[in-house]
Amino acid sequence: MYRTHTNDQLRASDTGKEVTLSGWVQKTRNKGFMIWVDLRDRYGITQLIFDEERTDADVMKMAAELGREFVVQATGKVIERESKNPNIPTGDIEILVQEFKILNESLTPPFTIEDDTDGGDDLRMKYRYLDIRRKPVRENLIFRHKVTMAVRNYLSAQDFVEVETPYLIKSTPEGARDFVVPSRMNEGQFYALPQSPQTFKQLLMVGGMDRYFQIVKCFRDEDLRADRQPEFTQIDCEMAFVEQEDILQTFEGLTRHLLKEINGVEIGDFPRMTFDEAMKRYGNDKPDIRFGMEFGELNEVSQHKEFNVFNQAELVVGIAVPGGNEMSRKQIDGLINWVKRPQIGALGMVYVRCNEDGSFKSSVDKFYDQDDLKNWADVTGAEAGDLICVLSGDANKVRAQLSALRMEMGERLGLRKADEFAPLWVIDFPLLEWDEETERFHAMHHPFTSPKPGQLDMLDTDPAAVRANAYDLVLNGNEIGGGSIRIHDKEVQSLMFDHLGFTPEEAKAQFGFLMDAFQYGAPPHGGIAFGLDRLVSILGGQETIRDFIAFPKNNSGRDVMIDAPANIDDEQLKELHIRLDL
Amino acid sequence: MYRTHTNDQLRASDTGKEVTLSGWVQKTRNKGFMIWVDLRDRYGITQLIFDEERTDADVMKMAAELGREFVVQATGKVIERESKNPNIPTGDIEILVQEFKILNESLTPPFTIEDDTDGGDDLRMKYRYLDIRRKPVRENLIFRHKVTMAVRNYLSAQDFVEVETPYLIKSTPEGARDFVVPSRMNEGQFYALPQSPQTFKQLLMVGGMDRYFQIVKCFRDEDLRADRQPEFTQIDCEMAFVEQEDILQTFEGLTRHLLKEINGVEIGDFPRMTFDEAMKRYGNDKPDIRFGMEFGELNEVSQHKEFNVFNQAELVVGIAVPGGNEMSRKQIDGLINWVKRPQIGALGMVYVRCNEDGSFKSSVDKFYDQDDLKNWADVTGAEAGDLICVLSGDANKVRAQLSALRMEMGERLGLRKADEFAPLWVIDFPLLEWDEETERFHAMHHPFTSPKPGQLDMLDTDPAAVRANAYDLVLNGNEIGGGSIRIHDKEVQSLMFDHLGFTPEEAKAQFGFLMDAFQYGAPPHGGIAFGLDRLVSILGGQETIRDFIAFPKNNSGRDVMIDAPANIDDEQLKELHIRLDL
Repeated sequence: MYRTHTNDQLRASDTGKEVTLSGWVQKTRNKGFMIWVDLRDRYGITQLIFDEERTDADVMKMAAELGREFVVQATGKVIERESKNPNIPTGDIEILVQEFKILNESLTPPFTIEDDTDGGDDLRMKYRYLDIRRKPVRENLIFRHKVTMAVRNYLSAQDFVEVETPYLIKSTPEGARDFVVPSRMNEGQFYALPQSPQTFKQLLMVGGMDRYFQIVKCFRDEDLRADRQPEFTQIDCEMAFVEQEDILQTFEGLTRHLLKEINGVEIGDFPRMTFDEAMKRYGNDKPDIRFGMEFGELNEVSQHKEFNVFNQAELVVGIAVPGGNEMSRKQIDGLINWVKRPQIGALGMVYVRCNEDGSFKSSVDKFYDQDDLKNWADVTGAEAGDLICVLSGDANKVRAQLSALRMEMGERLGLRKADEFAPLWVIDFPLLEWDEETERFHAMHHPFTSPKPGQLDMLDTDPAAVRANAYDLVLNGNEIGGGSIRIHDKEVQSLMFDHLGFTPEEAKAQFGFLMDAFQYGAPPHGGIAFGLDRLVSILGGQETIRDFIAFPKNNSGRDVMIDAPANIDDEQLKELHIRLDL
Repeated sequence: MYRTHTNDQLRASDTGKEVTLSGWVQKTRNKGFMIWVDLRDRYGITQLIFDEERTDADVMKMAAELGREFVVQATGKVIERESKNPNIPTGDIEILVQEFKILNESLTPPFTIEDDTDGGDDLRMKYRYLDIRRKPVRENLIFRHKVTMAVRNYLSAQDFVEVETPYLIKSTPEGARDFVVPSRMNEGQFYALPQSPQTFKQLLMVGGMDRYFQIVKCFRDEDLRADRQPEFTQIDCEMAFVEQEDILQTFEGLTRHLLKEINGVEIGDFPRMTFDEAMKRYGNDKPDIRFGMEFGELNEVSQHKEFNVFNQAELVVGIAVPGGNEMSRKQIDGLINWVKRPQIGALGMVYVRCNEDGSFKSSVDKFYDQDDLKNWADVTGAEAGDLICVLSGDANKVRAQLSALRMEMGERLGLRKADEFAPLWVIDFPLLEWDEETERFHAMHHPFTSPKPGQLDMLDTDPAAVRANAYDLVLNGNEIGGGSIRIHDKEVQSLMFDHLGFTPEEAKAQFGFLMDAFQYGAPPHGGIAFGLDRLVSILGGQETIRDFIAFPKNNSGRDVMIDAPANIDDEQLKELHIRLDL
């Protein structure tokens, strides 16, 4: 037996007990006649003491030669410490070591195993197994486990059944690129790894499973942006005999449960907002509503003067930055440069200082008088002391730009608090979105999403206006879940494939099994999928999903620890009936 | 809202309530003036009644035209049935339908949606979504969910953390064939899908995670035998600072919990048996100990006469089949033919009838007298009325043959009861096994398994004799779990790779990250993995794992429902830097 206790357990009341502990050497303090060792395991730290008057000489010698991260086993008596450490639960005691064993030695780690490490990202990823020894990373992984347990127990109690769907499925041209897997037994053919279990969960609904969920890995072979992973985890859910309202209620319940269980935060009914409203008020379909700074559209009150930049713009829109008038001219110039960065792409920014005396001072005083600026202040909700920031141009672009500015100002003003949670349903998404590159409509959610009742005919007359029974759950400015009511009628599904540019043959080849299934009594159904990596990182109050993934990949899709992907044998290629084509 | 209740909920006490139900038409009975419909959902069946005196004519008309598996919604009053059905929970009531809606029609299903279907295997797999509507299949999937929930909650309560390990990893030549995934971003390189998360769970132990588990898909590109799947699910577990005894205790606890929670069966301490003992007593490393018929080795009592078949055999071994003397000569001849089938491969079988009067009659009376046969009976434990079956030949082969015969007789005699559970630890497995084909030793468990303490030197002198800290959990003759204490010393691991025929370069290329990790303070650790598919099917008292997998593949690794694997575009191949080589 390697231990009688873990390193978080012993207290003053255990004084006198003989115990055995195991773990890693966190640090040592050597005064020659006495040596102290902080012994660490997953659960905590306990102090060992070696005392030349009470500890054997050979044990003293071993202790003197310990390095950081050595793995050791110590047996001894629990004694009360002379100088107690109130910062750790075991701080009242130490172990006077009698027997001692070095279980494994360690080279000096390439970075310090501390809460704040000196290791850079690359080093931490290469030695991820050492990174995981650090408390913040370990705690994140344990936190993730707690979240998934809470999800599973909640859904299970609501009659949801976790069903495993296959990983070796079929490639589909719709959506992102698939990862594929050559088949040895079926020459020249390939499996694909699922981008999501979408069609399978729909088939489970056809199969009468009624309520399905799965916490499941999904795969997308996309060029990786920061904080995207080629493999990611979804909480995938589907329900039969439901309308949109049933789904919103059910998963609002799940999210409320998580916020309470995991974060101890009680949240009432979640607000709802249509896609159109979100775009208008926040320039964004996933608004962070922890703070205000709502958009004020200024076309009416700004396009009556000689200022051609505004007059020619499709949209003139501003936000009132609270207390922003305190910014110096230099700071405001900095802000203007910020919105002009290529990532944001604004051509410029007009600003209005709202002085404490009720007067205004703007960068466009040449064109607008105090009454004009007062109107702007009214529209944007600006008060004395604020700074109104106004952008103009193409409506879609300028909304995105101002949304970025709003988020930046929220960040700078400390309004995006990690421990504050503001969930929001965004509903009534467009069914289709126009893709400039391919010059055709794509499904905004996916091709199985149902149009709003009664809008089917509009697919021919005004496809961009068709709204879907599709919804996103937004938390603190992040889309944490999204779903829709699905089409369950074979004819409607055919029509949809048709509008998405599939020939009937293509539709049959790709989704024939689903169309077939719809012939045999498909129930009305719908669902939602949550991005677990993102959800966990937000509940954990952190920014990057990578810190909640045990073994993440880098931006080139590489696992730098195991050095994958890698070359494979010619023999293997031959068995798989493929050759390299470099 | 599609329903106020599910189809299992209404009782006589609900009489008078107006309710809405949804579901599938299980069957209809039409007497013209009255129509009854059995409405089915996942939860149960409720009877609808349409009565021309009380139901609108247009609703009557719809009801008259209903086909099996139509999806419908019915609103009406709960009334007490005239003739009650005690076989279903809702059998006291029916719904007098007032409003009615056909939500979706259905073609006639290709097989009946009944507990016993007329659909063959192929048809059921092609229309698996209809097969899942059948109660036995649906119940199996729900049963699987219950088992995984019980596993997760038990392990979680024991401080195990479920950590997701990556699916896109690196191919290794050891073990079974990998499925590989060409990388688009890393030209000419491939990921592999994990055969198990073995190295990652060991790295988590190096990372101080202490107790890890994961219910996880694994992948093996093997030629499929019956009841093997290319993707299968493991309950994967690992613990640090443990000896074999800790692991056996922990997972005996898990298994005991499952048997109690899921099957309501209380089991005491699990028996243990060494590999050698299991082979000697049952000819098998996963003996079904629900019944006896233990092997009796007869060399000593049979190799002293003129019977050369026995005299030349490495092993003469028999079992006593209880009551077997009742078999006719013809039946015994049938048994002899059975053991001579190519799958079993025995050259013949000697038998001894144990007569009620204490005398013996054997097929080798020419060589052996009554005293000889009495000795055989003593060794095999045969009693009056039994039949002793004796096989001889090469020890390994003859043990496998007699083991097959023992299982067959257990089956025929009804001794392998689905609701009886006999777990068993088989321990002290050989570390290595000789592979005739490659003419070298392979790791019997895997290359990370630790030899027994003190047996390291025997790797050079007598490698086949080295025993490992490796163990299997056997349940009813099936290996449901297997694991080992791992090597945690870099030098020992190098030595092991060496003995397994890896050059130092190959070992470094394949497992360099693990060897590196072992330099930084790897703790003693070990673990186990359970085959979930098998475990669930045994707990469910059934034979085939396929019935507990939602969407299984056939013996050619094909999903016949979605028709995968399939061809992919040339464009896709090009992006992945590969060509077909047919």
